[in-house]
Amino acid sequence: MNYRFSERLGSFSSSAVREILKLTQGNSILSFAGGLPAEEHFPAQAISEAFGRVMEQGNKALQYGLTEGYLPLRQALCRRMEKKHVKVTPDDMLVTTGSQQAIDLLTRIYIDPGDVILVERPTYLSALQVFRSYGAVPISVDGDTDGLNLADLEAKLKQYNPKMLYVIPTFSNPAGRAWSEERRRGVLELCRRCDTLILEDDPYGELKFGDKSVEYRSLFSLDRHPEGSCVVYTSTFSKTVAPGLRTGWVMADPEIIRQMARAKQAADLQSSSLDQQTLYQLLEHFDLDGHIEFVRTEYEARKKHLVSLLEQYAWPGVTWEEPKGGMFIWLRLPKEIDTGALLKIAVQEGAAFVPGVSFYAEDPELNTLRMNFTYNDTATTIEGMKRLDRAMQSVLVKG
Amino acid sequence: MNYRFSERLGSFSSSAVREILKLTQGNSILSFAGGLPAEEHFPAQAISEAFGRVMEQGNKALQYGLTEGYLPLRQALCRRMEKKHVKVTPDDMLVTTGSQQAIDLLTRIYIDPGDVILVERPTYLSALQVFRSYGAVPISVDGDTDGLNLADLEAKLKQYNPKMLYVIPTFSNPAGRAWSEERRRGVLELCRRCDTLILEDDPYGELKFGDKSVEYRSLFSLDRHPEGSCVVYTSTFSKTVAPGLRTGWVMADPEIIRQMARAKQAADLQSSSLDQQTLYQLLEHFDLDGHIEFVRTEYEARKKHLVSLLEQYAWPGVTWEEPKGGMFIWLRLPKEIDTGALLKIAVQEGAAFVPGVSFYAEDPELNTLRMNFTYNDTATTIEGMKRLDRAMQSVLVKG
Repeated sequence: MNYRFSERLGSFSSSAVREILKLTQGNSILSFAGGLPAEEHFPAQAISEAFGRVMEQGNKALQYGLTEGYLPLRQALCRRMEKKHVKVTPDDMLVTTGSQQAIDLLTRIYIDPGDVILVERPTYLSALQVFRSYGAVPISVDGDTDGLNLADLEAKLKQYNPKMLYVIPTFSNPAGRAWSEERRRGVLELCRRCDTLILEDDPYGELKFGDKSVEYRSLFSLDRHPEGSCVVYTSTFSKTVAPGLRTGWVMADPEIIRQMARAKQAADLQSSSLDQQTLYQLLEHFDLDGHIEFVRTEYEARKKHLVSLLEQYAWPGVTWEEPKGGMFIWLRLPKEIDTGALLKIAVQEGAAFVPGVSFYAEDPELNTLRMNFTYNDTATTIEGMKRLDRAMQSVLVKG
Repeated sequence: MNYRFSERLGSFSSSAVREILKLTQGNSILSFAGGLPAEEHFPAQAISEAFGRVMEQGNKALQYGLTEGYLPLRQALCRRMEKKHVKVTPDDMLVTTGSQQAIDLLTRIYIDPGDVILVERPTYLSALQVFRSYGAVPISVDGDTDGLNLADLEAKLKQYNPKMLYVIPTFSNPAGRAWSEERRRGVLELCRRCDTLILEDDPYGELKFGDKSVEYRSLFSLDRHPEGSCVVYTSTFSKTVAPGLRTGWVMADPEIIRQMARAKQAADLQSSSLDQQTLYQLLEHFDLDGHIEFVRTEYEARKKHLVSLLEQYAWPGVTWEEPKGGMFIWLRLPKEIDTGALLKIAVQEGAAFVPGVSFYAEDPELNTLRMNFTYNDTATTIEGMKRLDRAMQSVLVKG
């Protein structure tokens, strides 16, 4: 049998992170690679109780449901969003299999091969993977710790007339940045002027460190919404409740939602009914905000711990941005170091991270890498950093 | 904001069934439309126990998992498949969000715009929806109750050199047909000769009526497999356990599985970890085969009941094929009747079905319709048929 794969096949590169995850499964590698939340903080008891409540509803809970998602869950999400300056109805919302699926579905209905999508530099690698799989051309816009560089954005909007801008404005992956409100408003204004749709990916917005009074408004909430919004907003419960429930959602202009729902019918009919109903019961009967408060305090402590270790090791020429929230810290090594080569040594030493190369639309800076600080407990982090140090010493000395 | 949707947007037609489902939600319409299993037979208690076992495993059960699917579930599926003359390993298998996602992912990696996909006449409407969304051109092959017409298949293989043939050989949707082994072997031989990949969709294979000793071998089991197989086989637990768990799987040559897994990474990273683990625990601790035996006996009784009512009403010029298994019966009305118009009257009378038009790749026979016989209990079926009779009388008299 001679298989005749599609021409787009070559564009499905496998995610570096997931390949590394595979590599580390079942052996003793301590990994800073995956975007994994801390397992020991999952609200397992509350999830069990929520599942029990679902099953009390009777067998209907196990039947097919609407493509758009379980209505009570969408209603609960609308109420939750109100506290975040967002007024939407269930018709402006679609439940997805994680926010990854929202990225995929929007790309599917909005992008033609050859279309340019502007992205941050660096940006989420699996979004790049989706965009390329549909034949889109991702092009990056410069930025700093306050967000996108507005002059560069304006120039690239003019140059490429892109259909879409993909951003993670609040605790970005991989750089951990949080945009200032001025930048947020500036990006909105520029994109609206050019009819460039903004895909705002917000998986980490609730994981805020530092001054609690600081509020990072979503682009979606700052724009007119939902009708006529130039922002499509997606988030997920993977980081605040648990990834195993695989539930995200997307809010947008209702016409965009309708089209995404049609694409979802074709893709998988609907996401898990059980997971959606379990999450709904959890939202109704569990203090999710209290839980998030606990998780983010823990994550901030882990971040501080990892930063303190980085400061102790003080590898020559290695710098980082202090993350304002989220799950990642982004390291820059001396220019001559290729972190892909470093990873191989690190894995031999028993530690892993994600080389920076995968996070760039173009012209990757090979001397960068991403570390996760949420998954490992204190002891594991200390041991993992020891191993990473051995790998670092070997390349930094050589360098 | 002027939205700039993709050119492929027009190809996302909404599924007729799901639109009808929406129409019937929350009001008193008795529906024969959806492909819904009987809720009262879901093994809810066993699912609850399985979930309990999952949660006993600890918090890791709620973490991210492999894109390919929960390994113990894949291993259990391999053991299950062995009883069906199939020898595969977990590497030849991918867990999906229902078998719908398997159809989507294979199309995504295998089909380019303009490619021809041969299908049965009639065939599953949501597969047509997927194929068209990727710009493929579905073309139907004639068939009868024994399966595809081999002469017509041979002619169309020659004429179109199609990359793919999509079929439901065992209790087809919508026609309820089961192919003879001769036809199965004939189709395999012809497709292998032309390097045409067969997508074998088998959601209903376990729901067999009549003589228990009759065995319908899957095309996949009849072909060399898994390496170099010209068949990609997909099935699901939606009809045998419950749709709410949203879990299907696909088996194929390992290279095809690898490519589909990459596409799945982009699409949604992975299916629900909880659902997969719950199914695994169910397979380990519950007599699924006994349960399936119970369900198919019930479904056969429901089929007989619906057929007896059809015989009683004996609408003039209305004929049907006796389904050999599955969930559907396919009706043919007098030529001049448009079942789309009939549906509107039926909905006014409080009953629903799916007009045949959506099940055709081309040249739809507008005088056909699909009825589901698994969802409604006896009393509901009797009342629904009364309502349908009123609608029928009004068009058959007019006709």
